[in-house]
Amino acid sequence: MTVENISVNKSFGGWHKQYSHDSKTLNCAMRFAIYLPPQASNGEKVPVLYWLSGLTCSDENFMQKSGIQRIAAELGIAIVAPDTSPRGDDVADDEGYDLGKGAGFYVNATQAPWNRHYRMYDYVVNELPDLIETMFPVTNKRSIAGHSMGGHGALVIALRNTDAYQSVSAFSPISNPINCPWGKKAFAAYLGRNTANWAQYDASLLMRQASHFVPALVDQGDADDFLVEQLKPEVLNAAAQVNRYPLELNYREGYDHSYYFISSFIENHLRFHAKYLTK
Amino acid sequence: MTVENISVNKSFGGWHKQYSHDSKTLNCAMRFAIYLPPQASNGEKVPVLYWLSGLTCSDENFMQKSGIQRIAAELGIAIVAPDTSPRGDDVADDEGYDLGKGAGFYVNATQAPWNRHYRMYDYVVNELPDLIETMFPVTNKRSIAGHSMGGHGALVIALRNTDAYQSVSAFSPISNPINCPWGKKAFAAYLGRNTANWAQYDASLLMRQASHFVPALVDQGDADDFLVEQLKPEVLNAAAQVNRYPLELNYREGYDHSYYFISSFIENHLRFHAKYLTK
Repeated sequence: MTVENISVNKSFGGWHKQYSHDSKTLNCAMRFAIYLPPQASNGEKVPVLYWLSGLTCSDENFMQKSGIQRIAAELGIAIVAPDTSPRGDDVADDEGYDLGKGAGFYVNATQAPWNRHYRMYDYVVNELPDLIETMFPVTNKRSIAGHSMGGHGALVIALRNTDAYQSVSAFSPISNPINCPWGKKAFAAYLGRNTANWAQYDASLLMRQASHFVPALVDQGDADDFLVEQLKPEVLNAAAQVNRYPLELNYREGYDHSYYFISSFIENHLRFHAKYLTK
Repeated sequence: MTVENISVNKSFGGWHKQYSHDSKTLNCAMRFAIYLPPQASNGEKVPVLYWLSGLTCSDENFMQKSGIQRIAAELGIAIVAPDTSPRGDDVADDEGYDLGKGAGFYVNATQAPWNRHYRMYDYVVNELPDLIETMFPVTNKRSIAGHSMGGHGALVIALRNTDAYQSVSAFSPISNPINCPWGKKAFAAYLGRNTANWAQYDASLLMRQASHFVPALVDQGDADDFLVEQLKPEVLNAAAQVNRYPLELNYREGYDHSYYFISSFIENHLRFHAKYLTK
């Protein structure tokens, strides 16, 4: 296993680091970022919040723009941010920003040409946490969060792996991808036209059927341009109500889809996760 | 006067906005960003911190990466971030990242071809605050801060306009540009080879000669790759000691030149300015 350190920056008394490694799951070199709070330099093992980013992002957007390091340093929680798709010259791509590189949608592709590399679900659920827990001073307590496409990924992964995650949260998640343009385009390409194969990646369907509950927090700006056509949090909320799922959904007046929204409420999210990660 | 709003994002209960306007000083269209804290939406006039960015930056880097909005919202201070040079197809440029576009060095150029547009000193000192104080619900209380090239700009502007600024701070400033490679290259191009004309833009010389004192705070990472060759805070500190200038200079162990450093200490800086802006 080759793991290469790319960058190191001190941040709020802890360390932000980027690494490149050869991913067996994705069949390519992958980059991820980790923030290790000061407690991790003092001989403590700390729990981990995984963050899944949205369309077009890399491991960098959240680490540079969210401001989470301040709160992670206070609470003693590591933050891990993977990339949003496989990368490299031989990885299939599409002209659209919403398919291919930067748009892995956290699924395991079954259709050519995507199925050679696009297995972000397995990467985030298995390979990446195995690597993190081998390399760094962290416990095996994990929570997961994300934004937009990454909010979809976080919800789906937590709902399907209830033993592996203490809590889940999302900003502006694609809540019902089988019924929105982004999801239909991506799932048709990655998973094929048989929509029966899509259900395993739809947070609203999974939440409606869940028998084990991972506590969930969702924030959604009401001035988000994608709210009605793409995100559909009302479908997720209806699923939670039918199934009495412990979902807290907050609409935030005037906020949009940007990192200015995420940074405004990320402290609430990390304190929510800390209730489950550090108890 | 044409002023066009380009973007609006709600952030920590206030508003981040970008504008384009025709600058008479710079003879081109210019973009700036402003963060208006919630108090400014409630009929209050708020004081302003001007932020000058470093080489290669635009109005966006600080607003996206510093996390200052959280503290500005708490303290009721507006933040204004101009671009770092004139812009446009007819603006002179250089192949280097450290001269021309993105590298205006906050001086008034006297040499061709630069003197047609490169008058960032006058723009930041006069045109921009006049525009801000006309357009927005702000008082005429101003402080100024910056990073690297922008730290140089903030110190020079405050030291030369002691009546106009309540306080000044800098991260990793180019403290003695007449004696470092970045400064020598830029000043030779913009100001010509007669180094007598450079002294008016050297923070260390100005601090040594100052007769009116604007309170000053400087933070410098001791793992900054540019510390020894380019930044030279020890020259600034020596000038302050000779002149008994009220400069607080903090060396921060392990921190580098990046926004991970700035975001870690920006709260200290804004609380420093608030002592003078909101009293």
